Amino acid sequence: MILAFIGTAGSGKTTLTAEFGKYLEENGYSVAYVNLDTGVKKLPYAPDVDVREDVTAWELMEEGLGPNGAIVKSYDLLIPKVSNCADKIRELDGKNDYVLIDTPGQMETFLFHEFGVRLMEAFPDALGVYLFSPEILRKPTDFCSARFFGLMIDLRLGITTVPALSKVDTANVDELRKYLDDIEYLTARLKLEPSTQGLLAYKLCSVLPELAPPTRVLYLSAKTREGFDELETVAYEHYCTCGDLT
Amino acid sequence: MILAFIGTAGSGKTTLTAEFGKYLEENGYSVAYVNLDTGVKKLPYAPDVDVREDVTAWELMEEGLGPNGAIVKSYDLLIPKVSNCADKIRELDGKNDYVLIDTPGQMETFLFHEFGVRLMEAFPDALGVYLFSPEILRKPTDFCSARFFGLMIDLRLGITTVPALSKVDTANVDELRKYLDDIEYLTARLKLEPSTQGLLAYKLCSVLPELAPPTRVLYLSAKTREGFDELETVAYEHYCTCGDLT
Repeated sequence: MILAFIGTAGSGKTTLTAEFGKYLEENGYSVAYVNLDTGVKKLPYAPDVDVREDVTAWELMEEGLGPNGAIVKSYDLLIPKVSNCADKIRELDGKNDYVLIDTPGQMETFLFHEFGVRLMEAFPDALGVYLFSPEILRKPTDFCSARFFGLMIDLRLGITTVPALSKVDTANVDELRKYLDDIEYLTARLKLEPSTQGLLAYKLCSVLPELAPPTRVLYLSAKTREGFDELETVAYEHYCTCGDLT
Repeated sequence: MILAFIGTAGSGKTTLTAEFGKYLEENGYSVAYVNLDTGVKKLPYAPDVDVREDVTAWELMEEGLGPNGAIVKSYDLLIPKVSNCADKIRELDGKNDYVLIDTPGQMETFLFHEFGVRLMEAFPDALGVYLFSPEILRKPTDFCSARFFGLMIDLRLGITTVPALSKVDTANVDELRKYLDDIEYLTARLKLEPSTQGLLAYKLCSVLPELAPPTRVLYLSAKTREGFDELETVAYEHYCTCGDLT
Protein backbone atom coordinates (compact mmCIF):
# COMPACT_ATOMS: atom_id res chain seq x y z
CA MET A 1 0.00 0.00 0.00
CA ILE A 2 1.10 3.53 -0.78
CA LEU A 3 1.15 6.33 1.77
CA ALA A 4 2.05 9.89 0.74
CA PHE A 5 3.06 12.33 3.46
CA ILE A 6 1.97 15.81 2.42
CA GLY A 7 2.26 19.07 4.31
CA THR A 8 3.80 22.51 4.50
CA ALA A 9 7.54 22.95 4.95
CA GLY A 10 8.43 22.19 8.54
CA SER A 11 5.43 19.96 9.25
CA GLY A 12 7.70 16.95 9.70
CA LYS A 13 7.13 14.87 6.54
CA THR A 14 10.68 13.59 6.18
CA THR A 15 11.22 12.69 9.82
CA LEU A 16 7.87 10.95 9.94
CA THR A 17 8.55 9.02 6.75
CA ALA A 18 11.77 7.72 8.30
CA GLU A 19 10.35 6.94 11.74
CA PHE A 20 7.08 5.41 10.58
CA GLY A 21 9.07 3.29 8.12
CA LYS A 22 11.36 2.05 10.89
CA TYR A 23 8.31 1.26 13.02
CA LEU A 24 6.74 -0.78 10.20
CA GLU A 25 10.01 -2.61 9.53
CA GLU A 26 10.36 -3.46 13.22
CA ASN A 27 6.85 -4.90 13.02
CA GLY A 28 7.90 -7.24 10.22
CA TYR A 29 6.71 -5.34 7.16
CA SER A 30 8.79 -4.65 4.07
CA VAL A 31 8.94 -0.94 3.39
CA ALA A 32 10.13 1.07 0.38
CA TYR A 33 10.89 4.79 0.51
CA VAL A 34 10.37 7.42 -2.19
CA ASN A 35 11.87 10.89 -2.01
CA LEU A 36 10.20 13.51 -4.22
CA ASP A 37 11.99 16.51 -2.72
CA THR A 38 14.58 17.96 -5.10
CA GLY A 39 15.75 20.38 -2.43
CA VAL A 40 16.50 18.13 0.53
CA LYS A 41 20.16 17.77 1.47
CA LYS A 42 20.20 14.86 3.91
CA LEU A 43 17.59 12.14 4.34
CA PRO A 44 17.15 10.05 7.49
CA TYR A 45 16.16 7.04 5.34
CA ALA A 46 17.64 5.31 2.30
CA PRO A 47 15.35 6.12 -0.65
CA ASP A 48 14.53 3.39 -3.18
CA VAL A 49 13.39 6.07 -5.62
CA ASP A 50 14.95 9.52 -5.40
CA VAL A 51 14.15 12.41 -7.75
CA ARG A 52 17.53 13.95 -6.91
CA GLU A 53 19.12 11.36 -9.19
CA ASP A 54 17.57 13.35 -12.05
CA VAL A 55 17.77 16.89 -10.76
CA THR A 56 18.47 18.85 -7.60
CA ALA A 57 17.36 22.36 -6.70
CA TRP A 58 20.88 23.39 -5.69
CA GLU A 59 22.50 22.55 -9.02
CA LEU A 60 19.93 24.90 -10.60
CA MET A 61 20.79 27.53 -8.01
CA GLU A 62 24.42 27.27 -9.04
CA GLU A 63 23.22 28.30 -12.49
CA GLY A 64 21.93 31.53 -10.95
CA LEU A 65 18.31 30.84 -9.94
CA GLY A 66 16.96 31.83 -6.53
CA PRO A 67 15.71 29.03 -4.26
CA ASN A 68 12.04 29.27 -5.30
CA GLY A 69 12.82 29.54 -8.98
CA ALA A 70 15.18 26.58 -8.69
CA ILE A 71 12.58 24.44 -6.92
CA VAL A 72 9.88 25.17 -9.52
CA LYS A 73 12.33 24.64 -12.38
CA SER A 74 13.46 21.30 -10.94
CA TYR A 75 9.88 19.99 -11.15
CA ASP A 76 9.48 21.42 -14.65
CA LEU A 77 12.49 19.30 -15.60
CA LEU A 78 10.95 16.25 -13.95
CA ILE A 79 7.70 16.35 -15.98
CA PRO A 80 9.08 14.09 -18.75
CA LYS A 81 10.04 11.59 -16.03
CA VAL A 82 6.57 11.28 -14.47
CA SER A 83 5.65 7.94 -16.12
CA ASN A 84 9.03 6.49 -15.37
CA CYS A 85 8.80 7.57 -11.75
CA ALA A 86 5.26 6.14 -11.48
CA ASP A 87 6.47 2.83 -12.96
CA LYS A 88 9.23 2.57 -10.38
CA ILE A 89 6.80 3.29 -7.53
CA ARG A 90 4.36 0.71 -8.90
CA GLU A 91 7.14 -1.85 -9.00
CA LEU A 92 8.09 -1.08 -5.39
CA ASP A 93 4.43 -1.39 -4.42
CA GLY A 94 4.30 -4.87 -5.95
CA LYS A 95 7.33 -6.02 -3.97
CA ASN A 96 6.71 -4.37 -0.60
CA ASP A 97 4.02 -4.18 2.04
CA TYR A 98 4.33 -0.40 2.23
CA VAL A 99 5.63 2.36 -0.03
CA LEU A 100 6.13 5.61 1.85
CA ILE A 101 6.26 8.72 -0.32
CA ASP A 102 7.98 11.80 1.11
CA THR A 103 6.66 14.72 -0.95
CA PRO A 104 8.33 18.06 -1.83
CA GLY A 105 9.28 20.38 1.04
CA GLN A 106 6.68 22.94 -0.01
CA MET A 107 3.20 21.47 -0.32
CA GLU A 108 2.16 23.75 -3.19
CA THR A 109 5.04 22.55 -5.34
CA PHE A 110 3.28 19.21 -5.24
CA LEU A 111 -0.38 20.31 -5.39
CA PHE A 112 0.01 22.98 -8.06
CA HIS A 113 2.67 21.51 -10.27
CA GLU A 114 1.97 19.17 -13.15
CA PHE A 115 4.63 16.78 -11.83
CA GLY A 116 2.86 16.15 -8.52
CA VAL A 117 -0.66 16.07 -9.93
CA ARG A 118 0.20 13.70 -12.78
CA LEU A 119 2.27 11.42 -10.55
CA MET A 120 -0.55 10.97 -8.06
CA GLU A 121 -3.08 10.44 -10.88
CA ALA A 122 -1.22 7.15 -11.36
CA PHE A 123 -2.09 6.11 -7.79
CA PRO A 124 -5.74 6.95 -7.11
CA ASP A 125 -5.82 4.38 -4.30
CA ALA A 126 -2.90 5.91 -2.40
CA LEU A 127 -3.65 7.32 1.02
CA GLY A 128 -2.58 10.91 1.63
CA VAL A 129 -1.53 11.89 5.13
CA TYR A 130 -1.91 15.65 5.51
CA LEU A 131 0.51 16.78 8.20
CA PHE A 132 0.08 20.05 10.02
CA SER A 133 1.94 21.07 13.14
CA PRO A 134 0.66 22.67 16.36
CA GLU A 135 2.35 26.02 15.63
CA ILE A 136 -0.11 26.82 12.82
CA LEU A 137 -3.06 26.46 15.23
CA ARG A 138 -3.11 29.84 16.97
CA LYS A 139 -6.74 30.89 16.60
CA PRO A 140 -10.11 29.07 16.32
CA THR A 141 -10.26 29.93 12.60
CA ASP A 142 -6.94 28.08 12.10
CA PHE A 143 -8.61 24.77 12.94
CA CYS A 144 -11.08 25.40 10.17
CA SER A 145 -8.37 26.17 7.63
CA ALA A 146 -6.47 23.02 8.65
CA ARG A 147 -9.56 20.91 7.93
CA PHE A 148 -10.15 22.57 4.58
CA PHE A 149 -6.55 22.23 3.45
CA GLY A 150 -6.98 18.50 3.93
CA LEU A 151 -9.96 18.62 1.57
CA MET A 152 -7.96 20.71 -0.90
CA ILE A 153 -5.31 17.98 -1.12
CA ASP A 154 -8.02 15.46 -1.79
CA LEU A 155 -9.41 17.74 -4.48
CA ARG A 156 -6.09 18.55 -6.18
CA LEU A 157 -4.64 15.04 -6.10
CA GLY A 158 -7.76 12.88 -6.20
CA ILE A 159 -6.65 10.73 -3.28
CA THR A 160 -8.30 10.09 0.06
CA THR A 161 -6.51 12.23 2.62
CA VAL A 162 -6.46 11.83 6.37
CA PRO A 163 -5.52 14.87 8.46
CA ALA A 164 -2.79 14.33 11.03
CA LEU A 165 -1.47 16.69 13.67
CA SER A 166 2.30 16.18 13.79
CA LYS A 167 4.82 16.90 16.54
CA VAL A 168 2.20 16.24 19.24
CA ASP A 169 5.02 15.85 21.76
CA THR A 170 5.59 19.62 21.51
CA ALA A 171 2.09 20.83 22.41
CA ASN A 172 -0.81 20.60 24.83
CA VAL A 173 -2.80 18.29 22.62
CA ASP A 174 -5.83 17.98 24.92
CA GLU A 175 -6.64 21.62 24.23
CA LEU A 176 -6.25 21.18 20.45
CA ARG A 177 -8.23 17.93 20.40
CA LYS A 178 -11.40 19.70 21.53
CA TYR A 179 -11.51 21.61 18.26
CA LEU A 180 -10.07 18.94 16.00
CA ASP A 181 -12.16 15.97 17.14
CA ASP A 182 -15.51 17.69 17.42
CA ILE A 183 -16.50 19.74 14.42
CA GLU A 184 -19.75 20.81 16.11
CA TYR A 185 -17.81 22.17 19.07
CA LEU A 186 -15.51 24.07 16.71
CA THR A 187 -18.46 25.42 14.72
CA ALA A 188 -20.20 26.61 17.91
CA ARG A 189 -16.97 28.32 18.99
CA LEU A 190 -16.55 30.01 15.61
CA LYS A 191 -20.07 31.40 15.82
CA LEU A 192 -18.80 33.61 18.66
CA GLU A 193 -16.04 35.18 16.54
CA PRO A 194 -16.99 38.74 15.65
CA SER A 195 -14.66 39.17 12.62
CA THR A 196 -15.58 38.55 8.97
CA GLN A 197 -12.80 35.93 9.05
CA GLY A 198 -14.66 34.24 11.91
CA LEU A 199 -17.90 34.37 9.97
CA LEU A 200 -16.28 32.74 6.94
CA ALA A 201 -14.77 30.03 9.16
CA TYR A 202 -18.15 29.47 10.80
CA LYS A 203 -19.85 29.07 7.42
CA LEU A 204 -17.11 26.75 6.14
CA CYS A 205 -17.25 24.52 9.21
CA SER A 206 -21.05 24.48 9.11
CA VAL A 207 -21.02 22.94 5.64
CA LEU A 208 -18.08 20.61 6.28
CA PRO A 209 -20.27 17.65 7.31
CA GLU A 210 -22.10 17.90 3.96
CA LEU A 211 -18.82 17.93 2.03
CA ALA A 212 -16.95 15.00 3.45
CA PRO A 213 -17.64 12.05 5.72
CA PRO A 214 -16.46 12.56 9.31
CA THR A 215 -12.73 11.92 9.29
CA ARG A 216 -10.78 11.19 12.41
CA VAL A 217 -7.70 13.27 12.96
CA LEU A 218 -4.51 11.39 13.77
CA TYR A 219 -2.13 12.63 16.46
CA LEU A 220 1.43 11.75 15.57
CA SER A 221 4.87 12.16 17.03
CA ALA A 222 7.96 10.97 15.19
CA LYS A 223 9.80 11.33 18.52
CA THR A 224 7.60 9.21 20.79
CA ARG A 225 5.87 7.22 18.02
CA GLU A 226 2.53 8.24 19.46
CA GLY A 227 -0.25 7.49 16.99
CA PHE A 228 1.83 5.17 14.80
CA ASP A 229 -0.44 2.22 15.61
CA GLU A 230 -3.46 4.30 14.64
CA LEU A 231 -1.86 5.39 11.36
CA GLU A 232 -1.13 1.76 10.61
CA THR A 233 -4.78 0.88 11.32
CA VAL A 234 -6.09 3.74 9.17
CA ALA A 235 -3.84 2.68 6.27
CA TYR A 236 -5.00 -0.90 6.65
CA GLU A 237 -8.67 0.10 6.76
CA HIS A 238 -8.22 2.36 3.74
CA TYR A 239 -6.91 -0.50 1.66
CA CYS A 240 -9.29 -3.12 2.99
CA THR A 241 -12.57 -1.29 3.35
CA CYS A 242 -12.30 1.21 0.51
CA GLY A 243 -11.82 4.51 2.22
CA ASP A 244 -14.12 4.57 5.25
CA LEU A 245 -11.94 6.54 7.67
CA THR A 246 -14.54 7.38 10.30
CA MET B 1 -4.35 51.66 -0.07
CA ILE B 2 -2.53 48.37 0.36
CA LEU B 3 -2.60 45.55 -2.19
CA ALA B 4 -0.91 42.22 -1.46
CA PHE B 5 -0.17 39.92 -4.39
CA ILE B 6 -0.40 36.33 -3.19
CA GLY B 7 -0.01 33.13 -5.17
CA THR B 8 1.99 29.98 -5.76
CA ALA B 9 5.54 30.15 -7.07
CA GLY B 10 5.47 30.98 -10.76
CA SER B 11 2.06 32.68 -10.71
CA GLY B 12 3.64 36.00 -11.60
CA LYS B 13 3.47 38.00 -8.36
CA THR B 14 6.74 39.88 -8.77
CA THR B 15 6.28 40.79 -12.43
CA LEU B 16 2.75 41.96 -11.76
CA THR B 17 3.82 44.03 -8.75
CA ALA B 18 6.34 45.82 -10.97
CA GLU B 19 4.06 46.30 -13.99
CA PHE B 20 0.94 47.30 -12.08
CA GLY B 21 3.07 49.73 -10.09
CA LYS B 22 4.42 51.31 -13.29
CA TYR B 23 0.89 51.53 -14.66
CA LEU B 24 -0.30 53.34 -11.52
CA GLU B 25 2.68 55.69 -11.56
CA GLU B 26 2.03 56.52 -15.21
CA ASN B 27 -1.52 57.38 -14.18
CA GLY B 28 -0.24 59.89 -11.66
CA TYR B 29 -0.40 57.90 -8.44
CA SER B 30 2.41 57.62 -5.93
CA VAL B 31 3.32 53.98 -5.37
CA ALA B 32 5.48 52.25 -2.76
CA TYR B 33 6.79 48.71 -3.11
CA VAL B 34 7.32 46.07 -0.43
CA ASN B 35 9.30 42.89 -1.02
CA LEU B 36 8.62 40.07 1.45
CA ASP B 37 10.49 37.37 -0.48
CA THR B 38 13.76 36.42 1.23
CA GLY B 39 14.67 34.17 -1.70
CA VAL B 40 14.35 36.44 -4.70
CA LYS B 41 17.60 37.40 -6.43
CA LYS B 42 16.58 40.23 -8.76
CA LEU B 43 13.56 42.48 -8.54
CA PRO B 44 12.06 44.42 -11.45
CA TYR B 45 11.13 47.28 -9.08
CA ALA B 46 12.97 49.27 -6.41
CA PRO B 47 11.56 48.15 -3.03
CA ASP B 48 10.90 50.75 -0.35
CA VAL B 49 10.78 47.97 2.23
CA ASP B 50 12.81 44.81 1.60
CA VAL B 51 13.04 41.88 4.02
CA ARG B 52 16.35 40.91 2.41
CA GLU B 53 17.97 43.74 4.32
CA ASP B 54 17.45 41.59 7.41
CA VAL B 55 17.94 38.10 6.05
CA THR B 56 18.21 36.21 2.77
CA ALA B 57 17.51 32.56 2.07
CA TRP B 58 20.82 32.12 0.28
CA GLU B 59 23.00 33.27 3.17
CA LEU B 60 21.28 30.56 5.24
CA MET B 61 21.95 28.06 2.47
CA GLU B 62 25.63 28.93 2.65
CA GLU B 63 25.43 27.78 6.26
CA GLY B 64 24.38 24.35 5.01
CA LEU B 65 20.56 24.42 4.85
CA GLY B 66 18.65 23.15 1.82
CA PRO B 67 16.48 25.67 -0.07
CA ASN B 68 13.22 24.84 1.77
CA GLY B 69 14.86 24.77 5.16
CA ALA B 70 16.57 28.08 4.41
CA ILE B 71 13.31 29.74 3.32
CA VAL B 72 11.44 28.61 6.45
CA LYS B 73 14.36 29.58 8.70
CA SER B 74 14.56 33.03 7.10
CA TYR B 75 10.95 33.75 8.14
CA ASP B 76 11.59 32.33 11.61
CA LEU B 77 14.35 34.93 11.91
CA LEU B 78 11.99 37.66 10.70
CA ILE B 79 9.36 37.06 13.41
CA PRO B 80 10.95 39.56 15.85
CA LYS B 81 10.84 42.14 13.03
CA VAL B 82 7.10 41.85 12.32
CA SER B 83 6.04 45.01 14.19
CA ASN B 84 8.89 47.00 12.74
CA CYS B 85 8.01 45.82 9.22
CA ALA B 86 4.33 46.64 9.79
CA ASP B 87 5.27 50.14 11.03
CA LYS B 88 7.30 50.81 7.90
CA ILE B 89 4.44 49.65 5.66
CA ARG B 90 2.00 51.81 7.61
CA GLU B 91 4.27 54.79 7.13
CA LEU B 92 4.48 54.14 3.38
CA ASP B 93 0.71 53.82 3.27
CA GLY B 94 0.37 57.25 4.86
CA LYS B 95 2.63 58.84 2.27
CA ASN B 96 1.53 57.07 -0.92
CA ASP B 97 -1.63 56.39 -2.88
CA TYR B 98 -0.75 52.73 -3.21
CA VAL B 99 1.46 50.26 -1.36
CA LEU B 100 2.03 47.08 -3.37
CA ILE B 101 3.18 44.06 -1.36
CA ASP B 102 5.00 41.30 -3.20
CA THR B 103 4.68 38.23 -0.95
CA PRO B 104 7.04 35.23 -0.55
CA GLY B 105 7.68 33.05 -3.61
CA GLN B 106 5.85 30.13 -2.04
CA MET B 107 2.34 31.01 -0.91
CA GLU B 108 2.37 28.62 2.05
CA THR B 109 5.42 30.34 3.53
CA PHE B 110 3.14 33.33 3.91
CA LEU B 111 -0.16 31.65 4.85
CA PHE B 112 1.27 29.13 7.31
CA HIS B 113 4.08 31.06 8.88
CA GLU B 114 3.68 33.30 11.89
CA PHE B 115 5.55 36.07 10.06
CA GLY B 116 2.99 36.34 7.26
CA VAL B 117 -0.07 35.86 9.42
CA ARG B 118 1.01 38.39 12.04
CA LEU B 119 2.11 40.94 9.46
CA MET B 120 -1.24 40.87 7.69
CA GLU B 121 -3.11 41.04 11.00
CA ALA B 122 -1.75 44.59 11.13
CA PHE B 123 -3.57 45.41 7.86
CA PRO B 124 -7.08 43.97 8.02
CA ASP B 125 -8.22 46.44 5.34
CA ALA B 126 -5.61 45.38 2.79
CA LEU B 127 -6.88 43.81 -0.39
CA GLY B 128 -5.39 40.43 -1.30
CA VAL B 129 -5.02 39.58 -4.96
CA TYR B 130 -4.86 35.80 -5.31
CA LEU B 131 -2.95 35.03 -8.51
CA PHE B 132 -3.25 31.69 -10.25
CA SER B 133 -1.99 30.95 -13.72
CA PRO B 134 -3.70 29.09 -16.59
CA GLU B 135 -1.37 26.09 -16.34
CA ILE B 136 -2.94 24.93 -13.07
CA LEU B 137 -6.39 24.78 -14.74
CA ARG B 138 -6.26 21.41 -16.49
CA LYS B 139 -9.50 19.77 -15.32
CA PRO B 140 -12.96 21.03 -14.26
CA THR B 141 -12.13 20.20 -10.63
CA ASP B 142 -9.13 22.59 -10.85
CA PHE B 143 -11.47 25.58 -11.23
CA CYS B 144 -13.11 24.59 -7.98
CA SER B 145 -9.80 24.32 -6.14
CA ALA B 146 -8.72 27.72 -7.50
CA ARG B 147 -11.87 29.32 -6.06
CA PHE B 148 -11.42 27.63 -2.69
CA PHE B 149 -7.76 28.57 -2.41
CA GLY B 150 -8.90 32.18 -2.71
CA LEU B 151 -11.19 31.61 0.27
CA MET B 152 -8.38 29.93 2.19
CA ILE B 153 -6.22 33.06 1.84
CA ASP B 154 -9.10 35.13 3.17
CA LEU B 155 -9.45 32.69 6.05
CA ARG B 156 -5.74 32.47 6.93
CA LEU B 157 -4.94 36.16 6.61
CA GLY B 158 -8.27 37.77 7.45
CA ILE B 159 -8.22 40.04 4.42
CA THR B 160 -10.67 40.32 1.54
CA THR B 161 -9.18 38.47 -1.40
CA VAL B 162 -10.05 38.81 -5.05
CA PRO B 163 -9.13 35.92 -7.37
CA ALA B 164 -7.16 36.85 -10.48
CA LEU B 165 -6.10 34.70 -13.38
CA SER B 166 -2.60 35.81 -14.34
CA LYS B 167 -0.68 35.47 -17.62
CA VAL B 168 -3.92 35.64 -19.63
CA ASP B 169 -1.85 36.46 -22.72
CA THR B 170 -0.61 32.84 -22.68
CA ALA B 171 -3.99 31.04 -22.80
CA ASN B 172 -7.36 30.76 -24.47
CA VAL B 173 -9.15 32.75 -21.82
CA ASP B 174 -12.64 32.51 -23.37
CA GLU B 175 -12.67 28.81 -22.58
CA LEU B 176 -11.51 29.37 -18.99
CA ARG B 177 -13.93 32.25 -18.44
CA LYS B 178 -16.93 29.97 -18.85
CA TYR B 179 -15.98 28.12 -15.68
CA LEU B 180 -14.52 31.03 -13.76
CA ASP B 181 -17.27 33.58 -14.34
CA ASP B 182 -20.27 31.34 -13.88
CA ILE B 183 -20.21 29.22 -10.78
CA GLU B 184 -23.53 27.59 -11.71
CA TYR B 185 -22.13 26.51 -15.07
CA LEU B 186 -19.08 25.05 -13.33
CA THR B 187 -21.22 23.28 -10.74
CA ALA B 188 -23.41 21.75 -13.46
CA ARG B 189 -20.30 20.58 -15.30
CA LEU B 190 -18.84 19.05 -12.13
CA LYS B 191 -22.03 17.09 -11.57
CA LEU B 192 -21.10 15.06 -14.65
CA GLU B 193 -17.72 14.02 -13.25
CA PRO B 194 -17.84 10.38 -12.22
CA SER B 195 -14.85 10.39 -9.82
CA THR B 196 -14.98 10.90 -6.05
CA GLN B 197 -12.78 13.94 -6.71
CA GLY B 198 -15.50 15.26 -9.05
CA LEU B 199 -18.15 14.63 -6.40
CA LEU B 200 -16.16 16.56 -3.80
CA ALA B 201 -15.65 19.44 -6.25
CA TYR B 202 -19.37 19.40 -7.07
CA LYS B 203 -20.30 19.58 -3.39
CA LEU B 204 -17.76 22.34 -2.72
CA CYS B 205 -18.96 24.47 -5.63
CA SER B 206 -22.60 23.87 -4.68
CA VAL B 207 -22.03 25.46 -1.27
CA LEU B 208 -19.72 28.24 -2.52
CA PRO B 209 -22.57 30.78 -2.97
CA GLU B 210 -23.52 30.29 0.71
CA LEU B 211 -19.93 30.84 1.83
CA ALA B 212 -18.94 34.02 0.09
CA PRO B 213 -20.59 36.77 -1.90
CA PRO B 214 -20.21 36.39 -5.67
CA THR B 215 -16.72 37.65 -6.49
CA ARG B 216 -15.67 38.63 -9.96
CA VAL B 217 -12.49 37.06 -11.22
CA LEU B 218 -9.92 39.42 -12.69
CA TYR B 219 -8.04 38.54 -15.86
CA LEU B 220 -4.56 40.02 -15.78
CA SER B 221 -1.53 40.16 -17.99
CA ALA B 222 1.66 41.88 -16.89
CA LYS B 223 2.72 41.75 -20.55
CA THR B 224 -0.26 43.46 -22.22
CA ARG B 225 -1.60 45.18 -19.09
CA GLU B 226 -4.98 43.60 -19.75
CA GLY B 227 -7.20 43.90 -16.70
CA PHE B 228 -5.09 46.58 -15.00
CA ASP B 229 -7.94 49.11 -15.21
CA GLU B 230 -10.27 46.57 -13.63
CA LEU B 231 -7.82 45.82 -10.82
CA GLU B 232 -7.55 49.55 -10.18
CA THR B 233 -11.36 49.79 -10.03
CA VAL B 234 -11.65 46.79 -7.70
CA ALA B 235 -9.01 48.26 -5.36
CA TYR B 236 -10.80 51.60 -5.39
CA GLU B 237 -14.17 49.99 -4.68
CA HIS B 238 -12.69 47.89 -1.89
CA TYR B 239 -11.42 50.96 -0.10
CA CYS B 240 -14.43 53.15 -0.82
CA THR B 241 -17.37 50.80 -0.44
CA CYS B 242 -16.04 48.42 2.19
CA GLY B 243 -15.42 45.19 0.39
CA ASP B 244 -18.30 44.72 -2.05
CA LEU B 245 -16.45 43.09 -4.96
CA THR B 246 -19.40 41.77 -6.93
